Amino acid sequence: MASNDTLAERLLAGDKRALARAITLVENDDPLGWEVVQEVYPHTGRAALMGLTGPPGAGKSTLIGALTRARRAAERTVGVLSIDPSSPFTQGALLGDRIRLTEHFLDAGVFIRSMANRGALGGLSEAALQAALLMDASGKDDVFIETVGVGQAEVDIIGHADTIVLVLIPGSGDSVQALKAGVMEIPDIIVVNKCDHPLTDTVVREIRGVLSLAPQRGWRVPIVKTEAARGLGIDALIEQLELHRAHLEEEGTLEERRRRNLRSEVIAICANRMRRRLEEALHEDDGVFRGLLDEVVARRIDPASAATTLLERVDAAEAAPHAGG
Amino acid sequence: MASNDTLAERLLAGDKRALARAITLVENDDPLGWEVVQEVYPHTGRAALMGLTGPPGAGKSTLIGALTRARRAAERTVGVLSIDPSSPFTQGALLGDRIRLTEHFLDAGVFIRSMANRGALGGLSEAALQAALLMDASGKDDVFIETVGVGQAEVDIIGHADTIVLVLIPGSGDSVQALKAGVMEIPDIIVVNKCDHPLTDTVVREIRGVLSLAPQRGWRVPIVKTEAARGLGIDALIEQLELHRAHLEEEGTLEERRRRNLRSEVIAICANRMRRRLEEALHEDDGVFRGLLDEVVARRIDPASAATTLLERVDAAEAAPHAGG
Repeated sequence: MASNDTLAERLLAGDKRALARAITLVENDDPLGWEVVQEVYPHTGRAALMGLTGPPGAGKSTLIGALTRARRAAERTVGVLSIDPSSPFTQGALLGDRIRLTEHFLDAGVFIRSMANRGALGGLSEAALQAALLMDASGKDDVFIETVGVGQAEVDIIGHADTIVLVLIPGSGDSVQALKAGVMEIPDIIVVNKCDHPLTDTVVREIRGVLSLAPQRGWRVPIVKTEAARGLGIDALIEQLELHRAHLEEEGTLEERRRRNLRSEVIAICANRMRRRLEEALHEDDGVFRGLLDEVVARRIDPASAATTLLERVDAAEAAPHAGG
Repeated sequence: MASNDTLAERLLAGDKRALARAITLVENDDPLGWEVVQEVYPHTGRAALMGLTGPPGAGKSTLIGALTRARRAAERTVGVLSIDPSSPFTQGALLGDRIRLTEHFLDAGVFIRSMANRGALGGLSEAALQAALLMDASGKDDVFIETVGVGQAEVDIIGHADTIVLVLIPGSGDSVQALKAGVMEIPDIIVVNKCDHPLTDTVVREIRGVLSLAPQRGWRVPIVKTEAARGLGIDALIEQLELHRAHLEEEGTLEERRRRNLRSEVIAICANRMRRRLEEALHEDDGVFRGLLDEVVARRIDPASAATTLLERVDAAEAAPHAGG
């Protein structure tokens, strides 16, 4: 317990290695990690939490690199959390992307961390949010979370940011259609990166058309053109990030938004733990489960009835006293 | 119970109205609906279950319309299940899309149904799979399930098909990137629709490049060019659908795939029911929950500790005898 106290203390003092260690504990679902979060939580809530999402190849890492450079120039400290999608056959390419952040690796005011999606979707989103809290507690002024905008887990992660930035490029026809059809939520800021491309104005016009159809809220979603690789448009993006934050604070919606986010975080943690319990109860080597599945495959018991039987079993196991820890 | 027996019997006899009624019951989570599924389940497993996914605007409905026409010409009966994404401001447009299927509404050998995504994501996927079983039991030879390829719930639904078709168009840069990065799974068949577009060959070349990097399986994923609105390429697509089915049957993988799908369906139903219990236990007007949330927002209790407290409460409520039904 004493060494754990020290870890939390060192983290609060801004020690990079303590932060790295705490995130590893959380990522490994180590109870010590949860204890650290519990201890430092009263010191969170100060950082500006920004989520960047968008299709792979939109240049999110490069953009975050450029944002980090600009924030450092303004003497702000930065945390970056990159959520790696599970990539069975192109991991190299994605890691290569992240290399664009290397110039910041030696800067004490910058902390960069990647988290891999190792199949355990709910688990990843849970760990990512805890990691963001740890970065916040360690005194980072700005925390950027980067996810690929595909899949519910990624959406869950990004949903917890104060400001959500969607990064598109010329050629992002599918994302524009998804916005238009209402299957992708309208973010707070839209970036069109790689704006040196000749089709930039076409995609900007399409996005503007979609936004004009969207219900009007207090905040008018800006479209910012950037060419992150050359640092172009970054100042304009930072201005919009600050305007959005000021808007949240003026309207008093920052607290409201954070309450809603924390509420869904608590529920997500509960649901994820329940699901884990279920999966533990349903080992492949569980004879009853396998027998039931055989019956379902043979079309003798329907899936819903099989689920009812299994849930009764899980409940009975829950009601019985736990063996071991 | 007698009238319920009759509903199942009429459904098995191929009565369209009985099928519609049973799907409505399942969609409304009416216990009678689950009873019908239970009763007819032994008569399922005969239909070829095909899932079509892809970005909005790719022409999936038009393609299914063309496929339906071709299957009817071959004297096969067809069921179509369209999953509507929640669209806050463009519902009209999406419904307009579906109008392309109207020519089949009066055909007794075709059954078309839309299901809306009313926020209850897990619930929708559960209801959709039950609806597919009901179509299968009612004697449809081919069942097409159409979803927008965004979000985990849609992926869950499509994951239960025997054959998964991804529909893209020239301009689907984001989807091609998602395939390339490994964040979108490689389907069984890829369609490039609207192939009258000048950029068709570019996107086909990009897709071919992605497929050449993917790990080789027994089945070589074909790319089929269609122009569904004019019925072009539909025969080639049907040929590939039949080849894939023959491949599954020859390799004995159809049974294996269905076992895996049924397994995850059973688990998904369990997890969904557990989550629903949790949400019922956590009403907004639940004083303890609100009090805990207040503490989390005030940064006095961290989200994970709040989750632990809540789960203990839910478990205690589960262990106590249930009041009412």
